[in-house]
Amino acid sequence: MHRVKAVELQRFSTKIFEAAGTPSDIAMTVSRMLVRANLCGVDSHGVRRIPEYVERIDTGQYKPKERPKILRQKGGTGIIDGRWGFGQPAAMMAMELAIKKARTHGVGTALAIRTNHIGRVADYTELAAENRMIGFGLTNCGPGVAPWQGRDRLLGTNPISFAVPAGKEDGLLVDYATSVSSAGKLEVFKTKGKEVPIGWVQDKAGNDSTDPNILAKGGSLRTFGGYKGYGLNLVVESLGGALTGEGVADEFKGQNGTFMQAINIEFFIPFREFTKGVDQLVKKMRGSSPAVGYSEVLIPGDPERRAVVERSAQGIELNDVVWGSLKKVATRFQIEDPVAL
Amino acid sequence: MHRVKAVELQRFSTKIFEAAGTPSDIAMTVSRMLVRANLCGVDSHGVRRIPEYVERIDTGQYKPKERPKILRQKGGTGIIDGRWGFGQPAAMMAMELAIKKARTHGVGTALAIRTNHIGRVADYTELAAENRMIGFGLTNCGPGVAPWQGRDRLLGTNPISFAVPAGKEDGLLVDYATSVSSAGKLEVFKTKGKEVPIGWVQDKAGNDSTDPNILAKGGSLRTFGGYKGYGLNLVVESLGGALTGEGVADEFKGQNGTFMQAINIEFFIPFREFTKGVDQLVKKMRGSSPAVGYSEVLIPGDPERRAVVERSAQGIELNDVVWGSLKKVATRFQIEDPVAL
Repeated sequence: MHRVKAVELQRFSTKIFEAAGTPSDIAMTVSRMLVRANLCGVDSHGVRRIPEYVERIDTGQYKPKERPKILRQKGGTGIIDGRWGFGQPAAMMAMELAIKKARTHGVGTALAIRTNHIGRVADYTELAAENRMIGFGLTNCGPGVAPWQGRDRLLGTNPISFAVPAGKEDGLLVDYATSVSSAGKLEVFKTKGKEVPIGWVQDKAGNDSTDPNILAKGGSLRTFGGYKGYGLNLVVESLGGALTGEGVADEFKGQNGTFMQAINIEFFIPFREFTKGVDQLVKKMRGSSPAVGYSEVLIPGDPERRAVVERSAQGIELNDVVWGSLKKVATRFQIEDPVAL
Repeated sequence: MHRVKAVELQRFSTKIFEAAGTPSDIAMTVSRMLVRANLCGVDSHGVRRIPEYVERIDTGQYKPKERPKILRQKGGTGIIDGRWGFGQPAAMMAMELAIKKARTHGVGTALAIRTNHIGRVADYTELAAENRMIGFGLTNCGPGVAPWQGRDRLLGTNPISFAVPAGKEDGLLVDYATSVSSAGKLEVFKTKGKEVPIGWVQDKAGNDSTDPNILAKGGSLRTFGGYKGYGLNLVVESLGGALTGEGVADEFKGQNGTFMQAINIEFFIPFREFTKGVDQLVKKMRGSSPAVGYSEVLIPGDPERRAVVERSAQGIELNDVVWGSLKKVATRFQIEDPVAL
């Protein structure tokens, strides 16, 4: 394990993307978001993506100089064309447009199409919450998940996020894949030589499996909560795949078909009255009695918040595989290696 | 068991509500929706509610003559005041307003406040799908569910629904509680003398339980999919409780704090192109390989569709408890008992 400070990783990441032909502002934005994912404890969306992004610049899938543009806007809606540049600026522009539309229409909704990987959906829904709105976002992605009661790898991990602003308390941050787990999380188990809990994945026949390598053997991820999570997953296919026109299931042509919505609270209720309710909800949850075997009741977003506190202080841990891949790309571009603590 | 035809139950239900002081049009609308729930296999929201509604008319909680009104509208949003009449017309008016707003603004969103029980959320989201839009709806309700890792009964079963129109195929209908189960479903287990599956409920300390009477003993329902379903449940508290101003968790003052949204597909993509995508998604799911132990892969809404086919032909089965309660209310109002098949 190698521990590195967040700022150091941001410096490193920015340099790499710049060296690969990315304008500085985009390189900085993307790097901050990758490192933010690590800080939040979501390592699957962190700096381990750097070599992947660079590789995709090499293959031409990423056009690092391209900037997103507003393709169309009408009423409270809009569509952002990501032009196959980095996905993060496109998704951010979609939420920015949604927030702007919500100022006039009460609810604003924008899609982002032709985008590469957008990272954590929470980065965008939180922007809405910072602007006194409720953020709702989701993104379709390539297949790795089986339908409920099925065994074919047809659906994306299809994450969904809601961010709800609070007053004095922490806001709610819901942000997760509609599968139980993701390929990225399985990697973590693989690296540690650990078995995956029952229910997360299945073999190619659809049997329970605990093998973190099961995807390479034709297995698949399962939707969370069975039929219910499956339903939500198909909503993401519909909004992020069919509505964006990027295709559905294993014929999804995009990388991340993205849907962002901002709900302007003031159109429904005075903001302070709303946050009073959310504060009360948060206090009630955190103040409630834990079930046997647990010591506390959390709210959605607490795991991320705690990781940020801990990792901001202690640094971000990178395993040997990730560390090695970062050093390799550093050598290629003659960038100084990240300095470990 | 007593089997009764749907039309006969509608006749019966309408007569009862009329006798209890409800205008005929409202009585008919509500009755059709209750029976529709039975047809869809969702007995918890079916005619077993008739005696409950009548009781609430007696106590003054239901004002059967009151009609919902538009309280406020602005941009793509609106608020319906249910005036404590039957909840169904209020929720329907909210979705109707959302659809109307979506014609101009692309996305329409309406709340319904001061409503009684609105029934199945799917009844409203389907209205959006019938109008070539994507329907999204949810409703907050009184507490029976514990927070994730908690044991206090603080949250509602808080259902959520999405309806997605298709072209030649059946559309997607996602409609479920964000708890694994509901009090109504436990009743069914109780009546049959069966144990509840592990994971659905817990005792008052938070231990696993299979007792269908556990709620009466201080136990609670659990959220579906653990932390993930818990997050979605709190989104419903936020939109259906805080945004409506009806209160959150165990201080929720309403019966059903309701949020309805219609997404106008044509603002984003030609309708036929969208439905081509959804058709493809549906065909891919249904045509995919079942996992071992299963014979087919379903889409969300299939269980309801199948129940409708079967129950339209065979009649709706009512157990002795429900049957007895319907006869009792029939006697009170001197209405002819439902005729069993």
